Amino acid sequence: MCIIAPFNFPLEISMLQVMGALFMGNKVLLKVDSKVSACAEELVRLLVLCGMPKNDLILVHTNGENMEYLLTQIDLRMTLFTGSSKVAEKLSKLLHGKIKIEDAGFDWKILGPDVDDIDFVAHISDQDAYALSGQKCSAQSVLFAHKNWVDAKFFDKIKQYAEKRSLKDLTISPVMTWNNKKLQDHVDSLLKISGAQLLFGGSPIKESHNVPDIYGSYLPTAVYVPLKSFSTKKYHDLITTEVFGPVQVVSEYNDNNIEVVLNILESFKQNLTAGIASNDPKFLNKILANTVNGVTYSGIRARTTGAPQNHWFGPCGDPRAGGIGTPEAIKYVWSSHREIITDVIIPKNLKIVQS
Amino acid sequence: MCIIAPFNFPLEISMLQVMGALFMGNKVLLKVDSKVSACAEELVRLLVLCGMPKNDLILVHTNGENMEYLLTQIDLRMTLFTGSSKVAEKLSKLLHGKIKIEDAGFDWKILGPDVDDIDFVAHISDQDAYALSGQKCSAQSVLFAHKNWVDAKFFDKIKQYAEKRSLKDLTISPVMTWNNKKLQDHVDSLLKISGAQLLFGGSPIKESHNVPDIYGSYLPTAVYVPLKSFSTKKYHDLITTEVFGPVQVVSEYNDNNIEVVLNILESFKQNLTAGIASNDPKFLNKILANTVNGVTYSGIRARTTGAPQNHWFGPCGDPRAGGIGTPEAIKYVWSSHREIITDVIIPKNLKIVQS
Amino acid sequence: MCIIAPFNFPLEISMLQVMGALFMGNKVLLKVDSKVSACAEELVRLLVLCGMPKNDLILVHTNGENMEYLLTQIDLRMTLFTGSSKVAEKLSKLLHGKIKIEDAGFDWKILGPDVDDIDFVAHISDQDAYALSGQKCSAQSVLFAHKNWVDAKFFDKIKQYAEKRSLKDLTISPVMTWNNKKLQDHVDSLLKISGAQLLFGGSPIKESHNVPDIYGSYLPTAVYVPLKSFSTKKYHDLITTEVFGPVQVVSEYNDNNIEVVLNILESFKQNLTAGIASNDPKFLNKILANTVNGVTYSGIRARTTGAPQNHWFGPCGDPRAGGIGTPEAIKYVWSSHREIITDVIIPKNLKIVQS
Amino acid sequence: MCIIAPFNFPLEISMLQVMGALFMGNKVLLKVDSKVSACAEELVRLLVLCGMPKNDLILVHTNGENMEYLLTQIDLRMTLFTGSSKVAEKLSKLLHGKIKIEDAGFDWKILGPDVDDIDFVAHISDQDAYALSGQKCSAQSVLFAHKNWVDAKFFDKIKQYAEKRSLKDLTISPVMTWNNKKLQDHVDSLLKISGAQLLFGGSPIKESHNVPDIYGSYLPTAVYVPLKSFSTKKYHDLITTEVFGPVQVVSEYNDNNIEVVLNILESFKQNLTAGIASNDPKFLNKILANTVNGVTYSGIRARTTGAPQNHWFGPCGDPRAGGIGTPEAIKYVWSSHREIITDVIIPKNLKIVQS
Repeated sequence: MCIIAPFNFPLEISMLQVMGALFMGNKVLLKVDSKVSACAEELVRLLVLCGMPKNDLILVHTNGENMEYLLTQIDLRMTLFTGSSKVAEKLSKLLHGKIKIEDAGFDWKILGPDVDDIDFVAHISDQDAYALSGQKCSAQSVLFAHKNWVDAKFFDKIKQYAEKRSLKDLTISPVMTWNNKKLQDHVDSLLKISGAQLLFGGSPIKESHNVPDIYGSYLPTAVYVPLKSFSTKKYHDLITTEVFGPVQVVSEYNDNNIEVVLNILESFKQNLTAGIASNDPKFLNKILANTVNGVTYSGIRARTTGAPQNHWFGPCGDPRAGGIGTPEAIKYVWSSHREIITDVIIPKNLKIVQS
Repeated sequence: MCIIAPFNFPLEISMLQVMGALFMGNKVLLKVDSKVSACAEELVRLLVLCGMPKNDLILVHTNGENMEYLLTQIDLRMTLFTGSSKVAEKLSKLLHGKIKIEDAGFDWKILGPDVDDIDFVAHISDQDAYALSGQKCSAQSVLFAHKNWVDAKFFDKIKQYAEKRSLKDLTISPVMTWNNKKLQDHVDSLLKISGAQLLFGGSPIKESHNVPDIYGSYLPTAVYVPLKSFSTKKYHDLITTEVFGPVQVVSEYNDNNIEVVLNILESFKQNLTAGIASNDPKFLNKILANTVNGVTYSGIRARTTGAPQNHWFGPCGDPRAGGIGTPEAIKYVWSSHREIITDVIIPKNLKIVQS
Repeated sequence: MCIIAPFNFPLEISMLQVMGALFMGNKVLLKVDSKVSACAEELVRLLVLCGMPKNDLILVHTNGENMEYLLTQIDLRMTLFTGSSKVAEKLSKLLHGKIKIEDAGFDWKILGPDVDDIDFVAHISDQDAYALSGQKCSAQSVLFAHKNWVDAKFFDKIKQYAEKRSLKDLTISPVMTWNNKKLQDHVDSLLKISGAQLLFGGSPIKESHNVPDIYGSYLPTAVYVPLKSFSTKKYHDLITTEVFGPVQVVSEYNDNNIEVVLNILESFKQNLTAGIASNDPKFLNKILANTVNGVTYSGIRARTTGAPQNHWFGPCGDPRAGGIGTPEAIKYVWSSHREIITDVIIPKNLKIVQS
Repeated sequence: MCIIAPFNFPLEISMLQVMGALFMGNKVLLKVDSKVSACAEELVRLLVLCGMPKNDLILVHTNGENMEYLLTQIDLRMTLFTGSSKVAEKLSKLLHGKIKIEDAGFDWKILGPDVDDIDFVAHISDQDAYALSGQKCSAQSVLFAHKNWVDAKFFDKIKQYAEKRSLKDLTISPVMTWNNKKLQDHVDSLLKISGAQLLFGGSPIKESHNVPDIYGSYLPTAVYVPLKSFSTKKYHDLITTEVFGPVQVVSEYNDNNIEVVLNILESFKQNLTAGIASNDPKFLNKILANTVNGVTYSGIRARTTGAPQNHWFGPCGDPRAGGIGTPEAIKYVWSSHREIITDVIIPKNLKIVQS
């Protein structure tokens, strides 16, 4: 069994995965991004300290290219891959599908027609989009607000929260994989969409700082785009690019074009998390019945980012989708169903018939 | 969702698969081997007659090549493939692993040290190997008998049962995919293994018949090979070739070389069914703990061929392994786990903290 | 095992209970009210016709007194009693609690603050109170309507439905256990409560009919009583008397006295079914969290009468509470948990220590 | 909710029960035998120290008589009683069966025809009968040895183990509820049974000690009685009296009178624990299928005394049977099944039909 994790992947989650694999009796081969191999080694030392038999886990320090070669040379029963969709597909092919995937998410939230607790909902939205400067696979990438919320000044509320963030109190973080140039280019492209509008942010942070240029240091940013632009082939890929940084797209819908929103959600290829902020059961049922995201938060407190400590965490709608966090997830990913039929007693006078 | 089934696949099992997929709410694309497309069409007509909405299922009549092309042009969320391991691997690569597989089995039975009910066990062994002339993915391909059974004349018993079989009363069937030439060549090759011995059969049936030459018409056959020949690289592939016909390999072990048998079982790549005919709990535990077959019959009545009507049916030890028959199997193959978290009440005085 | 059922108990439910008991392997002794013994006998004949071994069930034709004597003379492991609470308590004492009980219900419905689909909700309310002239253990005995529903003319709506009912089209039934005198006395007593008011009904049916006087033939009736009268010791018992006929009590509450309603619900001793007609999750949570009824319908479509074909059916909040209808209910009532621990292998070198 | 525990009941088990009740949200009233009230109070102080809200538990210090009076004055939803069957029946009547019971056991073990690991099985037998001088509700009260075990000198083996026990190393304990006089009288009565024989023990301990006379200080004792004496009405009650001390009855059976043993087991009224020491699946099935004990250990390592830390612990075959130890047991005893049906969406054009 093999676990592959990227460098920006929280080590406590790697730990969850490694322990799940061990619990199910697997021998584990662990490979993380070489940038964080040192950290992973400490994790392994901790496991050994806690009593893990040394031979139960193999830690491999190497780059992607060598790892791919290694994968072709050994016959792993299962590989759990966490990382980008691009690498996921490459490995799926290489491994003939003997893989479970926890890949990136283009996670959406929809605010239903029933406006309530607007401060709280705005706060959760701010957290989902900008905590850790948006560097979570479950970060809120796009928000669809019902007209009622827009009328209730929801966008102003999230702007107020965003503008309270600063590098000083660590509510803004350096961006590990997108530098300012790349972020600015993306925002500029979004703003060229017809009807698009910068709600806030849209530039590097103004505070003095010493974040190196290879990393990003960018303000929490929201770009409004009209609903119809999602349906434009030209803009669709641009809008639905997952930015591993503090940039989200927001849009507005109303009672008359909710079907348009559903079509947009159906067009997203990655189905990791989603939030439906509403307490209206009819609305919740409509959205839940027409979407397939793996982790779907529903109810007025809905978020897009949660934690595998609390519940199953993983994408949905793909037979390769992996899960982490719960006993069910551990059994699903790290074991196989096996049916043992016990049949110990031969009835007297059983008639023998050949067929 | 797509279901692909071979021509020698029982249609009642295709029906189970189609209905499982429909129960879970999928739109099904069904493709069976073009030789039996006509039968499959009748099956679909029956489903429609029973009330299946016409648009819930698409039946595709085509050959393998065109089907492969089709698969690359449409974006199926899941494909269930039943058929040979070779095609399974090809499709796995093509579909990037978005597949569940029910492939061929090289199914083994082991008779434990405790000899009991020898007539019954011999009868089950005869059925497992020769019913339908061995044309089941769960047919008994190899039998390991403990010395105690050999001493008790177990091989004579199965010979007696085999020799009662005849085309006339349908206890011998035409062989659909192996003709007599191919079967004879295989048997002859086995007999060249050092120490090998023909126990019975080993030639075409002698009764007059009108089975066309493109099909096989062959006697129930058992070839004894010594345990050590499995470990010879030269013979391993030969011995472990699944014959979709009435040919089985048998061997003998004793208390001193049970570990050798376990190593042989571990070397088998396909893990569909297995039987452990013994009522000794220590022996059962030893074998069960060291093997991974999907459907494992244990106890003195153990068989290798059972039915998905009774229990989960599918291989094990591979993340792509599919299952049929039980509610659990249907949910496992035809749906995805989705975690809906409902969170409807905002506690009073909840403190808001940005991070 | 023993099943005791009253005369007004639907035989198809007795059948469910008998079959549940048989499925779990019990030998059943069945006793129904002597008035319907003839019907029960037909049921048993049907079971025998369907293949039930004759000795699996004993049918006892007798009256209550003799049955009680019988119960003291034989050592039944379990008795399932369906009927009045009074007899249930008597038998509980007699049988030292080796009993499960499905007794009467004083079933309530509460309409939440969110008025919606008023016609439908009124229709369900009409059905719950007056179908079969209220002769169901799950009939709606009391209704608490939020002021918003009263303002929306809910009481007028249920009056309209009630007045459409007639003996002619069988939407009014003869009342088996309460005659007109008893029903009229009860309604008159309710109307003496300070602030009480007759909403509709309140007299025998006016159509010509030939229902004998020993049975009731009474109009669908609703008596409004103020919320505060429930809390009066003097009126509480009167109001909460279960009328096995077409008489319900209705009352009104508002946002300020919902706690009063909860206290009233807590005061009810019988907790069979309940309905909370609301789609407001906060309201639903509040009521659900503070009540213990066994079968609780929640949501705008909530009813008080459902069917054991669909879900577990039984009271709650009492260790003697039985359940019918689901596999879980059958196992709970008709079998006992038994823990079989299998321990077959003695580890080598196990150290023996006496203690 | 109320928990009643006897003085010789391990406090760690009371703790398990109290916590189970609290976990399920009950308010607990705890009453233990007044002799150990001081210890129970310490347990409650510990719970408070660990964070239990003070008002979640009421500790009552009182004698049985006052407690009974109290029970009639308050309306407890459920009482869990641990103690003698006599008091259990009394309380069942008093509480109309609103009770769960963990009462005494007359626990049996049967050694199957397959002799194996005789030292180990004898050791377990010694532990089951004499650990804590037999003062466990799960202590082995009677042992049925197959002739094969008797021939293999099993009785000599258990005698050797028993004679190693001494007060000095605490492998013999003072007996809390039976003094030497009472124990001696019981043993003497047993020895008057025709064919009875003292295998070992049968007198007070010989070591010097300072155990007060009100307690017992008695040697591990085994009395052999012939199988047929169980069936004698005269002796049955005597033999099946549970001695809460170091006295067990042993007997012998063979292949021809196994049905006699099954009839004897069926005659035991208390069904707490049992052990079937055999690895023969046919024998195990026969005994398991014909007995109803709550905790049944099967397999060559079978014991009669286990621990609720490991599995469900409780009697079987009585609707009042309680369970402790597992999540299932906690839910079964300390909560009630409640079925909440959610029904939130009214289909368009639903046709309204009165009935």
